[in-house]
Amino acid sequence: MLTLMQPNPSDASTPQTQDDRDLLHYEGRLARPVKAKLPELERGDRLRHVIFSGQFTVELLEELGGVADAIRQLSKHRSGQDFLINLLHHKRAMLYFTQPSTRTFLSFMAACQILGITCNEVRDPQTSSETKGETRFDSIRMFSSYFDLIVMRSPIARLAESCAYLMNDLERSGNRSVPIVNAGSGADQHPTQALLDIYTLQRTFSFSGPNDSSISSRFDDLRKQPGCEHLTKGLANKTYAFCGDIGRGRTVRSLALLLANYANVRLVFIAPPHPTLVMRDDLRDRLAARDVEVYEFDSLEQELDGKPVVEQVDALYMTRVQREHDTSDDADQYATIDFSQYCLTPEIVTRMKSYAPILHPFPRDQHFGEIPQEIDNDPRAMYFRQARNGMWVRAALLAHIFDVDGHIMRYFHQELG
Amino acid sequence: MLTLMQPNPSDASTPQTQDDRDLLHYEGRLARPVKAKLPELERGDRLRHVIFSGQFTVELLEELGGVADAIRQLSKHRSGQDFLINLLHHKRAMLYFTQPSTRTFLSFMAACQILGITCNEVRDPQTSSETKGETRFDSIRMFSSYFDLIVMRSPIARLAESCAYLMNDLERSGNRSVPIVNAGSGADQHPTQALLDIYTLQRTFSFSGPNDSSISSRFDDLRKQPGCEHLTKGLANKTYAFCGDIGRGRTVRSLALLLANYANVRLVFIAPPHPTLVMRDDLRDRLAARDVEVYEFDSLEQELDGKPVVEQVDALYMTRVQREHDTSDDADQYATIDFSQYCLTPEIVTRMKSYAPILHPFPRDQHFGEIPQEIDNDPRAMYFRQARNGMWVRAALLAHIFDVDGHIMRYFHQELG
Amino acid sequence: MLTLMQPNPSDASTPQTQDDRDLLHYEGRLARPVKAKLPELERGDRLRHVIFSGQFTVELLEELGGVADAIRQLSKHRSGQDFLINLLHHKRAMLYFTQPSTRTFLSFMAACQILGITCNEVRDPQTSSETKGETRFDSIRMFSSYFDLIVMRSPIARLAESCAYLMNDLERSGNRSVPIVNAGSGADQHPTQALLDIYTLQRTFSFSGPNDSSISSRFDDLRKQPGCEHLTKGLANKTYAFCGDIGRGRTVRSLALLLANYANVRLVFIAPPHPTLVMRDDLRDRLAARDVEVYEFDSLEQELDGKPVVEQVDALYMTRVQREHDTSDDADQYATIDFSQYCLTPEIVTRMKSYAPILHPFPRDQHFGEIPQEIDNDPRAMYFRQARNGMWVRAALLAHIFDVDGHIMRYFHQELG
Repeated sequence: MLTLMQPNPSDASTPQTQDDRDLLHYEGRLARPVKAKLPELERGDRLRHVIFSGQFTVELLEELGGVADAIRQLSKHRSGQDFLINLLHHKRAMLYFTQPSTRTFLSFMAACQILGITCNEVRDPQTSSETKGETRFDSIRMFSSYFDLIVMRSPIARLAESCAYLMNDLERSGNRSVPIVNAGSGADQHPTQALLDIYTLQRTFSFSGPNDSSISSRFDDLRKQPGCEHLTKGLANKTYAFCGDIGRGRTVRSLALLLANYANVRLVFIAPPHPTLVMRDDLRDRLAARDVEVYEFDSLEQELDGKPVVEQVDALYMTRVQREHDTSDDADQYATIDFSQYCLTPEIVTRMKSYAPILHPFPRDQHFGEIPQEIDNDPRAMYFRQARNGMWVRAALLAHIFDVDGHIMRYFHQELG
Repeated sequence: MLTLMQPNPSDASTPQTQDDRDLLHYEGRLARPVKAKLPELERGDRLRHVIFSGQFTVELLEELGGVADAIRQLSKHRSGQDFLINLLHHKRAMLYFTQPSTRTFLSFMAACQILGITCNEVRDPQTSSETKGETRFDSIRMFSSYFDLIVMRSPIARLAESCAYLMNDLERSGNRSVPIVNAGSGADQHPTQALLDIYTLQRTFSFSGPNDSSISSRFDDLRKQPGCEHLTKGLANKTYAFCGDIGRGRTVRSLALLLANYANVRLVFIAPPHPTLVMRDDLRDRLAARDVEVYEFDSLEQELDGKPVVEQVDALYMTRVQREHDTSDDADQYATIDFSQYCLTPEIVTRMKSYAPILHPFPRDQHFGEIPQEIDNDPRAMYFRQARNGMWVRAALLAHIFDVDGHIMRYFHQELG
Repeated sequence: MLTLMQPNPSDASTPQTQDDRDLLHYEGRLARPVKAKLPELERGDRLRHVIFSGQFTVELLEELGGVADAIRQLSKHRSGQDFLINLLHHKRAMLYFTQPSTRTFLSFMAACQILGITCNEVRDPQTSSETKGETRFDSIRMFSSYFDLIVMRSPIARLAESCAYLMNDLERSGNRSVPIVNAGSGADQHPTQALLDIYTLQRTFSFSGPNDSSISSRFDDLRKQPGCEHLTKGLANKTYAFCGDIGRGRTVRSLALLLANYANVRLVFIAPPHPTLVMRDDLRDRLAARDVEVYEFDSLEQELDGKPVVEQVDALYMTRVQREHDTSDDADQYATIDFSQYCLTPEIVTRMKSYAPILHPFPRDQHFGEIPQEIDNDPRAMYFRQARNGMWVRAALLAHIFDVDGHIMRYFHQELG
């Protein structure tokens, strides 16, 4: 670009990329603690923008789980499907996914379609207008001119949050403004993934029967089994283990922080002994600040309460080692690690509690093999069901944002009645 | 990829690509004769998965043609359109097209939309999840979590068939499972192309009037013309010619095998005298096994029943020479061939029977010129109509799969009555 | 491509690219004056194909503005939204955008969706079929087989116009034919951009109140202000200024020619003194032929009626300097130009008439800075509203083409009554 053509050049002290410069405008607001931000992301009794998993209180998680259940049940019959598909058929969504993610993208598409929302997408890293010198915020404001909701996923940390502030500023000045949903922004936040993980645990620990779970044993039977006498329904009073790439696992981090809101939970983190892969200090500190009982292990066989941890956990969250983010140093140091320690086998699964679900944010890595296919038919394998749960609970979230969740619950109870 | 990071490496004796390895799991089932496979692709009285053109019996072809006709007629008026668009508006389809094909893709999109099915697409050769180490089968199972139908086109031979088996395995183990429709898998099968070719012949040989055909002569008038005394309605008792790239023509192969099911048909294959372009042994053998009368010619002017074949045929199926698949040897040997022999001209068309349709699977090749534009307005030129027929008969197929075809036929007859 | 494989080679005297050759067929029709073409683009009392901004008479612009207003008002309530979305839900559109344009593309998508039209898209510069030797016209005819409307944007000048003639030829020979809408074809025409610019001016100069405009001053109050005594409603009797890249501004050209149809307008063109950027001779000649009062200035501060022009204009149309089309010569000569003269500042805006809207076809260029963000909250900043207006007026145009505009107006007046 010719300097001559730049009457408003940025001087040497400003940030290097235009995205950095754009975000500067929101710097003060971005720097605040999350707690101070939460009210701005709400309108009345509901979420307006969904940016952080920290926006989900235990009460809201219960409510969204209930709505997701209702949508799932209604979707089994034609009359319920027709009811749902007419709820928001006048709404148009923009899925602005400049960081690729097939699963999250398709799951949001399907969630929109269940409620009749028409979907539009921009998936190029750069829209053509951006190549003509348009800022990202002008692009976002353009989307808000044509559409009623923006779901965004971006490699730029805090872009979604900044866009929520842009929308709030527009609203304040009497202009058109639409809700922003963060579908993964940079390395820090992916709130709807945490939401679907929680919903999967809610469904599992409702022990509500074979129709709703591949775990055939019902609650009362379970309680008669040795070691299960104190089993309770719900997410409280449980031991949760996370295994694999703890250090870089965005989903691990969000889910752990949400689980910390439940009473009497223990969190076990099982990672290869390598600084890139073990828990980061900030997560350790945040969990400590909330008095959560935390264990850091380097093997599924390490003992907890005198038994191998894999036999003790109420739920096991497996992850993929994100090798695409490895540095060359990482790879050298990996030479001494036995990675097979962080892969399940059918034999290991057999030793797990009969009701303990195996979760995975997917995709799993066939080369690494953290979950070999032989396990897929085990009733504890919950990872495919988990993906479908993501669709239901995202539909519930959209219903909440557009304030039709009450309508859904009334229709659902009337149908049952 | 680092070996260190591969706790489950494949050993030297296994196939080279992951796709090959994945398909291995289905090897035994893939190797069976088609006849043994057919029952697995059905549920009750209808097709569950559409993989092979061999699944279409003459009876089913008649039935689908009738449904396609009904959908076409209903689409002419607003009330019929409204009826159709509400039939399956609660269904969501995934069009997984990793081998590009604009025509087949758009035709399926339109077919879905006629019935109200919401379409979603993945068209990248590799989804982002596959780059993270996900197997194709995990991707397909993900699609089946979110959508109610998977239409797939792939460069990998037998991928669609394998996916049908995956879905059957899931069904058997009580998991979610959806129908698979093959929209072209590798070099071997493209069943819905054969379906639209047959539907176009059904419509032409119904001789049902100017509204349904650009051939204005009606059946009774036609029978009075010299040489047409023995003309019958329907696909039986006809001579069909195929001209061009017979060797590599997937559509030629499928259509020829379906025509072999009709009584008293003769098939003429007209190809340049080159091993790549003439009929392959396996097709010749399969047609011989079914006692079909077959002729192999190297010119449209070669004589059949004492007259140039082009004047004798009841239908002429032209094809594009698929030069993109030429080897360097092929090109050298082409030097001695006069390819203009395999191109139509207005003069040649004039000599054809007045009712004989010219078909082409399209796209035609403007550089090769197998069908010059001057012919487009001739009433025998059926190739554009053929494309639109593809939309109608694909909609009929989807209606069949989702068991709303009976509903359509009842509504249609009631409207007429 | 092997010569041997080309039985119908083009000889040396024919144009070089296939697109050129294809367009040759329409050469005679393309060469006629626009006036001679207009009747072919109409059917009865309405537009069939939308190719030129010259098709919009003042009467039609008023009518479309009225329909756009009705659609906009109806979209504010659920019953109106439901009415609109059912109007054309049996129609399927193809958006064939081989020249990228996010804004125009998304705006047409949203416009279709408001009326319930299902959208399909082809955005690759080359469809896969074109790589197999298919002509663009075969591709277009394929689209017309599956869809009910083709909206196209192409780098090839006159492609949309030629496609309209193709459709007319098909219609004449009794074949299927669909409307063509030009969404920007080559450098010459972008009629729906001109339409949205006019609609934005219609809304502004209706002075109809704070709900419909961010300019809070109402007409009667305005007339009491000094210098506004002669202010009238509507687009006539106004001074319009265009600033920036006048030479290459396709939108400037189209809008200027449409404004020339209104009584007593003055047009001021403000461009840097460079042959690439100032008004081209043909536009100057066409405006002169219509007796429009035209001024060519090189600064916003140059005087008109004894005052700086920026203080005198009723509307200011800013543009982006299209540097992506610069030649290397252009860049050299730019060295002596002070481009900051063609950028607004908050101070300059303060001096504009209180009701005078600032328009911009967008995207704006953050590096050039023709409209800095500080101005966005000024009530005169109309450019974001302008984008949303594009959606409403494109929906009105589609309603006009499909002959449901009368239906919309009747429903709207009934709702009001």
